[in-house]
Amino acid sequence: MTTTAEIDLAELGQQLRVDSVRATGAAGSGHATSSMSAADLMAVLLARYLRYDFDWPDHPGNDHLIFSKGHASPLLYSLYKAAGAIGDDELMTFRTLGSRLEGHPTPRLPWVDVATGSLGQGLPVGVGIALAGRRLEPMPYRVWVLLGDSEMAEGSVWEAFEHAGYERLSNLTAIVDVNRLGQRGPTRHEWDLDAYARRAEAFGWHAIEVDGHDPVAIDAAYAEALSVSDRPSVVLARTLKGRGVASVENREGMHGKPLPEVDEAIEELGGERRMRVDVQRPAATTAPRSQHGVHAELPVFSVGEKVATRDAYGRALAAVGSDRGDVVALDGEVGDSTRSEFFAKQHPDRFFECYIAEQEMLATAVGMQVRGWLPFVSTFAAFLTRAHDFVRMASVSHAQLNVAGSHAGVSIGEDGPSQMGLEDLAMFRAVHGSTVLYPCDANQTTRLVAEMAAEPAGIRYLRTTRGGTPVIYGPDERFPIGGSKVLRSSDEDRLTLVAAGVTVPEALAAADELAAEGIPVRVIDLYSLKPVDVTTLRAAAEATGCLVTVEDHHPEGGLGDAVLDAFTDGRPVPRLVRLAVTTMPGSATAAQQLKEAGIDATAITTAAHRALAV
Amino acid sequence: MTTTAEIDLAELGQQLRVDSVRATGAAGSGHATSSMSAADLMAVLLARYLRYDFDWPDHPGNDHLIFSKGHASPLLYSLYKAAGAIGDDELMTFRTLGSRLEGHPTPRLPWVDVATGSLGQGLPVGVGIALAGRRLEPMPYRVWVLLGDSEMAEGSVWEAFEHAGYERLSNLTAIVDVNRLGQRGPTRHEWDLDAYARRAEAFGWHAIEVDGHDPVAIDAAYAEALSVSDRPSVVLARTLKGRGVASVENREGMHGKPLPEVDEAIEELGGERRMRVDVQRPAATTAPRSQHGVHAELPVFSVGEKVATRDAYGRALAAVGSDRGDVVALDGEVGDSTRSEFFAKQHPDRFFECYIAEQEMLATAVGMQVRGWLPFVSTFAAFLTRAHDFVRMASVSHAQLNVAGSHAGVSIGEDGPSQMGLEDLAMFRAVHGSTVLYPCDANQTTRLVAEMAAEPAGIRYLRTTRGGTPVIYGPDERFPIGGSKVLRSSDEDRLTLVAAGVTVPEALAAADELAAEGIPVRVIDLYSLKPVDVTTLRAAAEATGCLVTVEDHHPEGGLGDAVLDAFTDGRPVPRLVRLAVTTMPGSATAAQQLKEAGIDATAITTAAHRALAV
Repeated sequence: MTTTAEIDLAELGQQLRVDSVRATGAAGSGHATSSMSAADLMAVLLARYLRYDFDWPDHPGNDHLIFSKGHASPLLYSLYKAAGAIGDDELMTFRTLGSRLEGHPTPRLPWVDVATGSLGQGLPVGVGIALAGRRLEPMPYRVWVLLGDSEMAEGSVWEAFEHAGYERLSNLTAIVDVNRLGQRGPTRHEWDLDAYARRAEAFGWHAIEVDGHDPVAIDAAYAEALSVSDRPSVVLARTLKGRGVASVENREGMHGKPLPEVDEAIEELGGERRMRVDVQRPAATTAPRSQHGVHAELPVFSVGEKVATRDAYGRALAAVGSDRGDVVALDGEVGDSTRSEFFAKQHPDRFFECYIAEQEMLATAVGMQVRGWLPFVSTFAAFLTRAHDFVRMASVSHAQLNVAGSHAGVSIGEDGPSQMGLEDLAMFRAVHGSTVLYPCDANQTTRLVAEMAAEPAGIRYLRTTRGGTPVIYGPDERFPIGGSKVLRSSDEDRLTLVAAGVTVPEALAAADELAAEGIPVRVIDLYSLKPVDVTTLRAAAEATGCLVTVEDHHPEGGLGDAVLDAFTDGRPVPRLVRLAVTTMPGSATAAQQLKEAGIDATAITTAAHRALAV
Repeated sequence: MTTTAEIDLAELGQQLRVDSVRATGAAGSGHATSSMSAADLMAVLLARYLRYDFDWPDHPGNDHLIFSKGHASPLLYSLYKAAGAIGDDELMTFRTLGSRLEGHPTPRLPWVDVATGSLGQGLPVGVGIALAGRRLEPMPYRVWVLLGDSEMAEGSVWEAFEHAGYERLSNLTAIVDVNRLGQRGPTRHEWDLDAYARRAEAFGWHAIEVDGHDPVAIDAAYAEALSVSDRPSVVLARTLKGRGVASVENREGMHGKPLPEVDEAIEELGGERRMRVDVQRPAATTAPRSQHGVHAELPVFSVGEKVATRDAYGRALAAVGSDRGDVVALDGEVGDSTRSEFFAKQHPDRFFECYIAEQEMLATAVGMQVRGWLPFVSTFAAFLTRAHDFVRMASVSHAQLNVAGSHAGVSIGEDGPSQMGLEDLAMFRAVHGSTVLYPCDANQTTRLVAEMAAEPAGIRYLRTTRGGTPVIYGPDERFPIGGSKVLRSSDEDRLTLVAAGVTVPEALAAADELAAEGIPVRVIDLYSLKPVDVTTLRAAAEATGCLVTVEDHHPEGGLGDAVLDAFTDGRPVPRLVRLAVTTMPGSATAAQQLKEAGIDATAITTAAHRALAV
């Protein structure tokens, strides 16, 4: 093994190139040239700056290295090999079925914090990790993020620059591999490092321009970054895509593929090398922070009271925050609406105002859960669509994340369609491994918040309502995830109304009206939309033969579709009627909106009559 | 009527305030204080700078005024009243059922180009309109966008700054109402106008700082903006939220509600005024550009050939672009993958490279369709999630928009889950009024591209596949939107396989295997997922009693749920079996991916056996 002091950095860079070329060559796909441009940048980092115990990936003092340009995964895996974390045999499994070395990095590898590959996400997540190291758990770790120049066009990158600059996160260093060439040709700014520097400095960062193939200059740039104590630094490195192999170097059309002549390329790069870097270990650190809280009771509400589920959410979140010291809350400048302000007031040290930057908010939360915190993210359900790609990637990252979307549906009233979450259930149901919850009353909401916090894994989504809804459950009722509540039931039920959230009181009113007409119907409160309560739905189907679903959401992907999850195993399916929001709403009162959308008690009653007449 | 020359700008500002206070007071909701801060800015604009014929909203020379801070709608409507476009009676209908004056502006009003209210969207759309005025149809119109300071945190705003700065759009002026207070308290930069100016200038804009309540200074600022001919300008205006009414002025907790004492406030503002502004008309312009193309045949492919549907898409798009001069194409720096490069090569004047900024790409397209162009937007299906909120708002805007998502599903192979569109069908199906198409072969793709272009309204989504699929349809086959193709059928069919896109060849192989075993099954190519072909699905259900759906998408919100759209009218529902991607994929070949996900021919055959054994 070559020790750090002795290491020839240029040689190490060549080794990383050779291994990247070999891995992509063996795979027959992958990003060789995008790895080669950043090889020297990463060689210097690995040998001189990174503090990381590869035998102990959970070491609380480890630095964090994120490849925001996830397509340069061959370089990342070549680094791991140089550090002795993986062997050459495993390197050669790149991109094959079952290999941990996927086309883009994922946390199947213990040294990868988050999945990348959707550009413009690694830096935003890095900000969250760096922020945790400053505001949640003063720790000496450093966050290094390697970006490509193409992804500097993503607005999410500038949300991250803004956030990190404002928070003066000097423990964060961004390294931009400015190789001038995107996937299909030159980037907007090509090698105009000044263009990037001006933007970064305007956002409060320290910018350093450097020749990305000069190890001495790179070394000096990192040292300079470490010396800046009042702001984050960005190292803007001028590099050549495909550096070191003349047939591909700085040429268009060479993106995202192995080199055409692998053996010749390896020879041109000087052949295989077997350097091993003894990566610096982090300093011994104190035990991880205490995550103990003080026991706190969930808030309780009296049956019959009218309470907005968003209010119950905010108060429950504050209580869960008392109970558990690892809970953090983030909001997109609408905490007075989502009611996360209750948490903010009680736990200001664990509340993060993310302003109106939903992508960065999600990413910050993902970064914090990397450090073991349990985030609750809140904004309007409608505006969570802004962060869809971040939610999607969080699921690839196996992130532990709780998300609450308020102001769901037309029932918000006068504000109109721009503020109405009418697609959020579809969005969150389609996320792999997600949990989707939609409470109808305040006591149910508080219990579900506690359930979310107790879930072992995945993305948990809670949908809340703006206006007050009657409390129908006592404070001792339990609401397990995957469950439902049968609110009206008899042996003579002629059909079943399936509702959730704001449509539950409407369904109950319709059922009472129908009962008065001598038509008993079953009512199910399907508060858990994913997973759904298969047993109860099937029993209702068998008993009543027809399900009428009613939801404050577009007809696609919401409650009506969720019900189907109970009936796709080839067994008989009941008759189905779906009530949902099929029109484009305008402004109106909440009651008018439900009526106009055809999801109020009257519409349900009418639909039930029709269904029974079929 | 007061003529423009005589108008007292301060008085006009007060009138706009009073009318904003009156409208919100009458409605009992709405954003009074956010309107009051920008009243002077808009008074000067209306009286001195805006060129707009309110009697002829489609006048091609009209300026465009976008309220990116859509919550200041009372101010916008008060402007319309001052311009004589609406009467006081209509102003007082603000936020009531049936009124055109919604909580946030929508194109139900003929002078509103696009719906706003989700912050950070108006400027991006304005960039698209300004770009059309420069690169598509040299026209003297000017684009004015009023932003709030809170929305400057959105990354989409900086994507817009980057795009406009790079394109040197001097016909665009952003006006930022820096009133210091967001919804729940101070913004990040409060009144630090320099902070915004530094950022804007770094992105290539001309920045002007001004007292937003000094009409003379505002007038000078706009004049300065008009005088800058090589870049866009931003007017950064220091203002007071709730300006003019002491009880709310510059106070927290006064966001998004009427003033507490409406009558007293009106008195404090000097009472009602009845000024009418004779807004400058635009200069007479030449007739709108010709949109005629030269007749071009769609590309045709030979049955049996293996062609990627993305290739067919790109070639069809180029042909449609020849056929129609109003078609424009935009791509997010992956045109060599989506194959929009075919269009780019043939029609470079109508192709827009948007780099990796999907939100800005969508917004640019929305802006161009405001000017009558027909955009096709292309990127990876996975990365369209980045622009979800823009798609959602485009539908509120009644935008005409075609979107193509390539690299759908696990079938992309080695690149892994970050690049796989597995939620896109759910996302686009849930959009109001959308059309969702998923072709399985090249000839079908080209026909569907032509169908999309011919649709009269709405958001049309086309999902394409990375790898080659066999051409199974002849070039003369037609594929109407809302249709399907029955590919295998007999009177003895024992169940129906419903597939789309990459699973069609798998379903056909399974059907052939089952037929060889003596089990005839029907196969439906459900290329139109929204709307679905209710007639054909119902006929198959009645004839075979069981539908097996198979899709390269997560189980929620995709093909399996789309099928249900044919069965929610209370009539009997067939038995259902759903095959979809329920696991988190890694890297593997395309064939391995289909196998691992359980959606290949073998899995379909097995599922059919099981379904028949139930």
